[in-house]
Amino acid sequence: MGSSGTGRLEAFSDGVFAIAATLLILEIGVDTTHGRSLGDELTHIWPSYLAYATTFLIIGIIWINHHHCVSLMRRVDRPFLFINLLLLLTVSFMPFPTKLVAQYLQKPGEKDAVIAYAVTMLLMACIYNIWWRYARGDRRLISDAVSNASLDAVDRAFNPGVPSYGLVLVMAFISPLAAVIITLALAVFYLPSAALFERSG
Amino acid sequence: MGSSGTGRLEAFSDGVFAIAATLLILEIGVDTTHGRSLGDELTHIWPSYLAYATTFLIIGIIWINHHHCVSLMRRVDRPFLFINLLLLLTVSFMPFPTKLVAQYLQKPGEKDAVIAYAVTMLLMACIYNIWWRYARGDRRLISDAVSNASLDAVDRAFNPGVPSYGLVLVMAFISPLAAVIITLALAVFYLPSAALFERSG
Amino acid sequence: MGSSGTGRLEAFSDGVFAIAATLLILEIGVDTTHGRSLGDELTHIWPSYLAYATTFLIIGIIWINHHHCVSLMRRVDRPFLFINLLLLLTVSFMPFPTKLVAQYLQKPGEKDAVIAYAVTMLLMACIYNIWWRYARGDRRLISDAVSNASLDAVDRAFNPGVPSYGLVLVMAFISPLAAVIITLALAVFYLPSAALFERSG
Amino acid sequence: MGSSGTGRLEAFSDGVFAIAATLLILEIGVDTTHGRSLGDELTHIWPSYLAYATTFLIIGIIWINHHHCVSLMRRVDRPFLFINLLLLLTVSFMPFPTKLVAQYLQKPGEKDAVIAYAVTMLLMACIYNIWWRYARGDRRLISDAVSNASLDAVDRAFNPGVPSYGLVLVMAFISPLAAVIITLALAVFYLPSAALFERSG
Repeated sequence: MGSSGTGRLEAFSDGVFAIAATLLILEIGVDTTHGRSLGDELTHIWPSYLAYATTFLIIGIIWINHHHCVSLMRRVDRPFLFINLLLLLTVSFMPFPTKLVAQYLQKPGEKDAVIAYAVTMLLMACIYNIWWRYARGDRRLISDAVSNASLDAVDRAFNPGVPSYGLVLVMAFISPLAAVIITLALAVFYLPSAALFERSG
Repeated sequence: MGSSGTGRLEAFSDGVFAIAATLLILEIGVDTTHGRSLGDELTHIWPSYLAYATTFLIIGIIWINHHHCVSLMRRVDRPFLFINLLLLLTVSFMPFPTKLVAQYLQKPGEKDAVIAYAVTMLLMACIYNIWWRYARGDRRLISDAVSNASLDAVDRAFNPGVPSYGLVLVMAFISPLAAVIITLALAVFYLPSAALFERSG
Repeated sequence: MGSSGTGRLEAFSDGVFAIAATLLILEIGVDTTHGRSLGDELTHIWPSYLAYATTFLIIGIIWINHHHCVSLMRRVDRPFLFINLLLLLTVSFMPFPTKLVAQYLQKPGEKDAVIAYAVTMLLMACIYNIWWRYARGDRRLISDAVSNASLDAVDRAFNPGVPSYGLVLVMAFISPLAAVIITLALAVFYLPSAALFERSG
Repeated sequence: MGSSGTGRLEAFSDGVFAIAATLLILEIGVDTTHGRSLGDELTHIWPSYLAYATTFLIIGIIWINHHHCVSLMRRVDRPFLFINLLLLLTVSFMPFPTKLVAQYLQKPGEKDAVIAYAVTMLLMACIYNIWWRYARGDRRLISDAVSNASLDAVDRAFNPGVPSYGLVLVMAFISPLAAVIITLALAVFYLPSAALFERSG
């Protein structure tokens, strides 16, 4: 298409973000066939709630950032559509490692589960960086009206992503539970921060 | 983004509402391996239909109200996006307690199932109140063209939410079945009421 | 809202239609634990393909007609939102009886499965009629630019719906397989017909 | 509707594409009840990752091409809506053969699984060709502003589709694994190619 508007890119991406986030709940279940009461079981599966909330917030943050970045673009091109597709492939993969964390945390295999989770997040953060660098390099896809300061603000906001998930991956080898809690904390503290977008209003 | 239009907030939110409502059906199943005929089983699983219809209508009501409230806003800001994300996290969690009600109503564990259901609804109602109060406080996100009477009408409509679900939670301890039926009745009677929006047309 | 544009009604409805149609595939599975080869099993589960295609086309037809009818409206009101919600509740219920047909056709219980399927379709057709009659009565929600001939064309197109599904329900008692095939035939023959919309272009 | 804009066709189609792609992940699961560690199991299920990535990229390509082709149209008509529905029926069927490949590759039954996969892709490619030929024949649905060179570019891009999937089907009989890898390679090499749309900018 040479170039094209951003409308349907947003529609398809929004769809994938919303569906991936909403599917997460399907992986949560209870098992009362072993004699535990339902009330006990609902307490016992707290790792499922932790995994659900963490991934839901991360997908929400990605969506908000995706939303903001696309709003700075005047067009998309074919290589960008391809990178965007890889990003969405990673996002829609997330329910799988989330299910692993929900099922294995505090059980044998929890380290492998959290490593798979951290690797997915790290991969997503790397693809997201490539996605942004492609769009922003030489202002390739950026609207003329957008100031360089706005682009720098996005750069600064994206910089901590890869190291943060790298840290989570390292933590997964030391304490799988701590690694998941750190991921949740990163999401909760990062999200309300207005630092990223203050300058681009 | 400092401020931003409401378009993609609506797209993402609509997506989550529609998906959460439509996923509910996946949790309904029949089991004819114990010698019951399919016809008997289809009658026997009436709690599944009750849970399905109740949650579907509640999500529909939330969607209609969300729709109306966002139409009063001229912009969204970052804290609001965060609160909206928490609201969606609660909405997309609903298929889980709905499945619990479908599976455990009229069986051992039904009280725990309905308590989990009522707590989720109560939490959702609280977050929804915070969501609205944030947007409406000092007319922070409200369009200039919207009258104070319109905002008051929304306030009045939202006031019964938290006490209603609190009542449902209390009822869950006395009669789980009654608690679910009251929830359905609240939804059915509340929805067609034109009281909320008559003044804001 | 007194009255309101049709944009978000369409967004939410389109979402439910698209999701309900796409979820159908999740109910299809194979079971090769009983010694049958995968190739044989893939042939053996033809009722699943039949059920999938039939319901998918029916949801598609409902979507096309919904699309057309809403395009004739200038606004929606609160009772209409409620009826629309009941319609969507029925549509998003469809994966359940579809799964029943896929699992039980040609097996004990097939009559009950197809009756459940036909009752769902009949209920949907009734609600759809109410939905349309409400919007069209006194031209309550209809755009001024729409001719009465266009409305009559929709009436004529909707008239066969309830009797057709009534016939399917009767057939379910005589021959469940024939009832499903008739449903598919109705969808295939009905859909490409240009009769409905020729006059409303 | 005689004729109609393309907006809601795109909304419904985008929804189906996004949902079908995102549902794929639900079919991936691990089984550690046979004594294998989770880490080993996560390596062992590589066919699931291969099947997931391949189908996700194919759906993404179809979506991008669909997006491009619809952007060339000024209207849709009823027969086109029907063909589009058949196309979506095939796309939303994809999670099923993808699950088969994920479950059976490198196991007894892999040939049948990959044949089912290739037949689905071939069918989809055929319907896609019909879809495009209908829209483009006599420029039936094409905007006046679109040059014939743009249409020829789409023709050239679509030509390899059916033979490619025919080749994959033949390969499925010789080496199921090779057939899947070829499908992935076709997707990866095809997607970033700018050949299709360079001339139509």
